[in-house]
Amino acid sequence: MDEEILFSMIKEKNIRELRPILAAMNAVDIAHLLNDVSKEDLPILFRLLPKDLAADTFVEMDTDMQHLLISSFSDRELRLILEELFIDDTVDIIEEMPANVVKRILNQSDAESRKTINEILQYPEDSAGSLMTIEYVTLRKDMTVKDAFDTIRKTGVDKETIYTCYVTDHQKYLQGIVTVKTLLLSKDNTLIKDIMETNIIHIDTHTDKEEVAKLFSKYSFLAMPVVDKEGRLVGIITVDDAMDVIEDEATEDITKLAGVTPADKPYLKTSIWQIWANRVPWLLFLMVGATFTGMIIRKYESTLAVSIALTAFIPMLMDTGGNASSQASVTVIRGLALDELEFKDIGKILWKETRLSILLGGTLSVACFIKLMAIDQLFRIPHGYIIAAAVCVTMFITIMVAKIIGGTLPLFAKLLKLDPAVVANPFITTMVDAVSLIIYCNVTILLLRPLGVL
Amino acid sequence: MDEEILFSMIKEKNIRELRPILAAMNAVDIAHLLNDVSKEDLPILFRLLPKDLAADTFVEMDTDMQHLLISSFSDRELRLILEELFIDDTVDIIEEMPANVVKRILNQSDAESRKTINEILQYPEDSAGSLMTIEYVTLRKDMTVKDAFDTIRKTGVDKETIYTCYVTDHQKYLQGIVTVKTLLLSKDNTLIKDIMETNIIHIDTHTDKEEVAKLFSKYSFLAMPVVDKEGRLVGIITVDDAMDVIEDEATEDITKLAGVTPADKPYLKTSIWQIWANRVPWLLFLMVGATFTGMIIRKYESTLAVSIALTAFIPMLMDTGGNASSQASVTVIRGLALDELEFKDIGKILWKETRLSILLGGTLSVACFIKLMAIDQLFRIPHGYIIAAAVCVTMFITIMVAKIIGGTLPLFAKLLKLDPAVVANPFITTMVDAVSLIIYCNVTILLLRPLGVL
Repeated sequence: MDEEILFSMIKEKNIRELRPILAAMNAVDIAHLLNDVSKEDLPILFRLLPKDLAADTFVEMDTDMQHLLISSFSDRELRLILEELFIDDTVDIIEEMPANVVKRILNQSDAESRKTINEILQYPEDSAGSLMTIEYVTLRKDMTVKDAFDTIRKTGVDKETIYTCYVTDHQKYLQGIVTVKTLLLSKDNTLIKDIMETNIIHIDTHTDKEEVAKLFSKYSFLAMPVVDKEGRLVGIITVDDAMDVIEDEATEDITKLAGVTPADKPYLKTSIWQIWANRVPWLLFLMVGATFTGMIIRKYESTLAVSIALTAFIPMLMDTGGNASSQASVTVIRGLALDELEFKDIGKILWKETRLSILLGGTLSVACFIKLMAIDQLFRIPHGYIIAAAVCVTMFITIMVAKIIGGTLPLFAKLLKLDPAVVANPFITTMVDAVSLIIYCNVTILLLRPLGVL
Repeated sequence: MDEEILFSMIKEKNIRELRPILAAMNAVDIAHLLNDVSKEDLPILFRLLPKDLAADTFVEMDTDMQHLLISSFSDRELRLILEELFIDDTVDIIEEMPANVVKRILNQSDAESRKTINEILQYPEDSAGSLMTIEYVTLRKDMTVKDAFDTIRKTGVDKETIYTCYVTDHQKYLQGIVTVKTLLLSKDNTLIKDIMETNIIHIDTHTDKEEVAKLFSKYSFLAMPVVDKEGRLVGIITVDDAMDVIEDEATEDITKLAGVTPADKPYLKTSIWQIWANRVPWLLFLMVGATFTGMIIRKYESTLAVSIALTAFIPMLMDTGGNASSQASVTVIRGLALDELEFKDIGKILWKETRLSILLGGTLSVACFIKLMAIDQLFRIPHGYIIAAAVCVTMFITIMVAKIIGGTLPLFAKLLKLDPAVVANPFITTMVDAVSLIIYCNVTILLLRPLGVL
């Protein structure tokens, strides 16, 4: 259904036609639609949804709209929605709401849910504990396949997934895992203990969510169990949550590489003060870092004064150095994020980047010499050939230094338990800028001094 | 089990102990281990694995190692592995192998698989068709739930997923979808047509895999049906494949932003010639782009000759401009990739970035003035205050221009169906560099001319 048609129905308050259309839609699409309607229409439209669809839609909506809706709910309506929500979704909503709304949500939750919500809220923000849900199917190892299906039928309707079932003892220690596929392909009287998988890959409550996402993408599981320090099953994480984490982590890395502190909310929903706060420290840091380049230029004043052409090539050399280093650093940073690289690979990386820098430096220097002669026509100015030579030699050395710094600094950041994506950009840029300038000025002195112009 | 202990067992050829250990391990971990063993040990170790685990492990291994193994396989061994593989995995392997190996694989596949493989190979490389598998469960709408379970039990063992079943007619037209959860929670004599979901979100064979990944992360499905132009079901895509695509797309975007053509293989497995080819065009392009900055500096030679301090701040101004623009461009590029932004938001983005650039430009200019006085001690040199003023005014205007170019150019790239991540970096950097220099020189002239020094 075209969004525009829906919006015109909303405008005309064509409730009778809207109700069946909305009821047939996917919750994600309804949420997308409701995020764009007016404050006044929102509660009216939301009340058109059948109960279970309403809860699914509510989860998918933007925080602001959830807040608006909760304010418009009666206590009874709020309670009905909360009953339909999975605990992990309730916790996600609570984390974004102001204190008075949180209080209302907790008041309308039943005692057991309230206890669980408070437990989950205790876990660190980016931990597996904060990501998990407690709605999973538990089986016992002495059940038969038939018993297992009875349990699933009886308890499964409220579970986030029924396809992976968890076999625990009475103290909740995790003993095995069995999938519905295995159950379906086994005979009714088979015992669970004979078909369950006992080599269990599990997550600890305090594991970082980035680690969790990596485990999912490595093993392709649909769900993974979360255990406490004593090995007791406390929750599960499902693949859809892991997928969100993978996307968020990629966004964070891209954002950090561009010198921006990651935001919690989408760009259009973030206030300009928040964006200002996320961007300004990096710009300030990098601006102050550039003090070194200024100092170097002033120190080599007499050298650069020989010809304005010498100064004219500084931006090109610094840009090339910056580009060469970020090519290497980003490759290594992404390799670290995907667990394809680790610190012990430093030798291999150095060897590869060194050979690469000879190839790239060689190509760029030759191309640069041709450009200097053909486009910049350096042969027409005094000492033009010497200046061209100085630029090309500097280009070669700068690329070499840039590749080596860019390829190794992220590894040291990782070793020091710093975020490679954060450390890499400002430090590497500042270092490579300064180094390339020093090389340039010294190479120039070396080549120009014999001519007596310095 | 510690990898080092395993490697020492491998070294000692301790087959008897290794066999049960490997048999209890996850295929992903075995593949990780086998990727690091010697060419000689590889076939010996691989033959220790039980048949189904062998196939799962084979799929997870690096291309080079798969190639080595296939060379060591007898025709019969190859056929046994191929029988266990899902068609989409076989296709993935074929796409990486040299022609003679492809021929061998096709010869050892049965006629029906061969036909399907050839069909899938026809789809464009990044399309849904090339990603899909044909091993799914089909049901008919007049079946009962009991019939459905019988079908799943009979055919499910070889299917990539059994949790989502597809209801088709005799011409393979997709009529509905039913999950095993729904089946389990329904009575045995319920008809499929009464419980199936008919509002189906599907993928076309030619949909780009990036689009596919977005659909999965939007709707949180475990599997999605792929239909041909006539609406007939031809395959399914499962969430694990979508997760790989999300990770690959993020890697590609990060790589492109750093001016590197994305590689097919991990860094350590890519030859230096390939990496050279992926990196060199960008460095060359950006180097030639820097010609403009050189030209501008030489054009304004007489202005810059007033004081070396004027030249000394060029790198800082250009770096700040570059950083300010990439902050905006990366935010917009990621927003476009996640479908949070589209071209029609250009007004909102412009309005936001304009206000931001006033805030950021204001902060940076004030900070810069303090830095120029305190660190660079500009008050000690002739016309120092004027130079400081010129630098700060330029900084303000540059940030404004940088934010506006950075925030809008990716949108135009998208509108022109170009990849925003590719277009953004080189063009924006080159443009902002040139613009900031021109602003600097003109502001300087404007402020210095009244003093009679120009």
